[in-house]
Amino acid sequence: MNDPLLFTPGPLTTSATVKTAMQRDLGSRDTEFINLVAEIRRELLQIAGVSQETGYETVLMPGSGTFAIEAVLSSAIPPDGRLLILANGAYGERMVQIAERLKIAFRVHRWPENESPDPATVSQLLSETPPATHVAIVHLETTTGILNPLDQIGRIVREHGAGFIIDAMSSFGGVPLNLPILQPDYVISSANKCLEGVPGFSFVIAQRAALEATAGYARTVSLDLLAQWQGLERNGQFRFTPPTHALLAFAQALKELREEGGGAARAQRYRVNHEALLTGMRDLGFREFLAPERQSDIITSFRYPDDPGFLFDEFYQRLAAKGFVIYPGKVSQADCFRIGTIGRISIADVKALVREIGHALERST
Amino acid sequence: MNDPLLFTPGPLTTSATVKTAMQRDLGSRDTEFINLVAEIRRELLQIAGVSQETGYETVLMPGSGTFAIEAVLSSAIPPDGRLLILANGAYGERMVQIAERLKIAFRVHRWPENESPDPATVSQLLSETPPATHVAIVHLETTTGILNPLDQIGRIVREHGAGFIIDAMSSFGGVPLNLPILQPDYVISSANKCLEGVPGFSFVIAQRAALEATAGYARTVSLDLLAQWQGLERNGQFRFTPPTHALLAFAQALKELREEGGGAARAQRYRVNHEALLTGMRDLGFREFLAPERQSDIITSFRYPDDPGFLFDEFYQRLAAKGFVIYPGKVSQADCFRIGTIGRISIADVKALVREIGHALERST
Repeated sequence: MNDPLLFTPGPLTTSATVKTAMQRDLGSRDTEFINLVAEIRRELLQIAGVSQETGYETVLMPGSGTFAIEAVLSSAIPPDGRLLILANGAYGERMVQIAERLKIAFRVHRWPENESPDPATVSQLLSETPPATHVAIVHLETTTGILNPLDQIGRIVREHGAGFIIDAMSSFGGVPLNLPILQPDYVISSANKCLEGVPGFSFVIAQRAALEATAGYARTVSLDLLAQWQGLERNGQFRFTPPTHALLAFAQALKELREEGGGAARAQRYRVNHEALLTGMRDLGFREFLAPERQSDIITSFRYPDDPGFLFDEFYQRLAAKGFVIYPGKVSQADCFRIGTIGRISIADVKALVREIGHALERST
Repeated sequence: MNDPLLFTPGPLTTSATVKTAMQRDLGSRDTEFINLVAEIRRELLQIAGVSQETGYETVLMPGSGTFAIEAVLSSAIPPDGRLLILANGAYGERMVQIAERLKIAFRVHRWPENESPDPATVSQLLSETPPATHVAIVHLETTTGILNPLDQIGRIVREHGAGFIIDAMSSFGGVPLNLPILQPDYVISSANKCLEGVPGFSFVIAQRAALEATAGYARTVSLDLLAQWQGLERNGQFRFTPPTHALLAFAQALKELREEGGGAARAQRYRVNHEALLTGMRDLGFREFLAPERQSDIITSFRYPDDPGFLFDEFYQRLAAKGFVIYPGKVSQADCFRIGTIGRISIADVKALVREIGHALERST
């Protein structure tokens, strides 16, 4: 059974050994599993460049990335808090949707999808009254593939004394993110993005002091971040049934990240994948949606070809039939599709995809 | 690598073929996965003895069972609704905790953990004003293993025109539950209980009319049951990244349920497992917590032996070292431990467990 290669933002192609790690059934309250969870939590801090000694904690949360985002927003913002959302894509808008639903007092400032939030505007926004208690931003907007620079914005948020929440779903482990400098309160990511596990849970790296200050804030039981952390601390267990197999896969995925040489080596592989993709796609006449200096190596939005006869669904199906799954677009102002360059994918795979895109294009034009 | 057998309420021992089904990476928006999800949703209705034609729908929800319980309570109860919770164990209390957290107007009536909610009291409770708009009950309380008879209570709830919510987490697929007669609004269960999949998601079988009447009620984005259903209906996809591997495993688990002969055959295997367990444990001098007529075949609470030298942790570790994982107790009035008889476990496995319990007992006394 030969599955297609997934050139998507996740679920993505994982290694055979990551999948084989799921060929077990562990008891969720048994010592081996408890040790595995503890090891995963420690290692995530290490990948983030922080530690318990420097005041950080890892909380694992079942469900998709959105569950972990909502866990943070619904658990971290006090009843009288005010959230400022810096948005330049669909995942910024999802935080807006969550804040609305949770009846959190919030304000959103929007940038075009091909531009990043800029420090001057953020500084201005934070100077207005009443001041925001928390600021949330997406590190890498999967909508377009844009990488939002965080260094200056992080400094400004810190200077204003606001809590800093980073949605690092599509970047963590594959794009540098300097936690010791940024000192974010919450960084959120998922098992099945750059860490190359299977989907089933997400995680939050949180400053212990921030977490501890949230008693009584959580708006739900399932997504109660503080209670989830306290449960893990108390006896090493999830409060409720964990996705044991996804965690087994993740432990193996983290081992393979170490073997690859850590986050820097992984970022380098993604960079090589991405460069091969760009070269090949440009040769075929495709243009990227974003300016090159804003583009991440994780996922790229390409504009539809000018040819009015181009039908994306047909194009997609042709590629899928050949074993290459790409991703539809999410940009609101332009017709685009997306190609991810993460997961257990090599430069040879990318070149094979580009060749097949060339063939699919010949047939569809 | 020989994993222990899990005599727990889940995660449980699954078949090798269920686990092997996870050796793939499917795109979550690709046709094959969409078809798999549609097939799972159809089959769950069939197992429940209902269909879309008779007005029922299946909604799949990532996360543990508690996430699905909270999804129902937070999505189904209107802002001015009043929930009556019939509780005789920890999972009834969890609904209380959720209702409190969500600020839902609720009332709880408690029965002792070794007794079931009785129709006369329920009738009385529903006659009081203001009347409850919804009634929630646990079908099989995993706390003790008690099976709560629902037929009369269901009729009473219907007569009073209240919505009926059944937590069938530990019973669905392994204990008869007559949906066509009970006509519940919501039945909630999980992939890794009697259906013998791996943990990672839960599901809700809902009356379409009830579901459709809940627009605007959902208190969160992640656990929005109506939006999750509408998403699945619109394009066959989850709104957010689904646990693709857990769903692959589940499709295989449902195939194996069919091959075993469906829910009736599975219930019969669990009955045989349970009888072998009772016979063996009684021979060793153990006594069950529940009266036999209240006891389900799914999980059984046994009282600690009278011997004051009995140390559960030691007992547990001895069994675990021999490859048998049992479960701690959750009964509040008595010292108990629990043994599950579900999962890919045969009568021979149960007999092997009982033998090992005999040895562990000799050494610990």
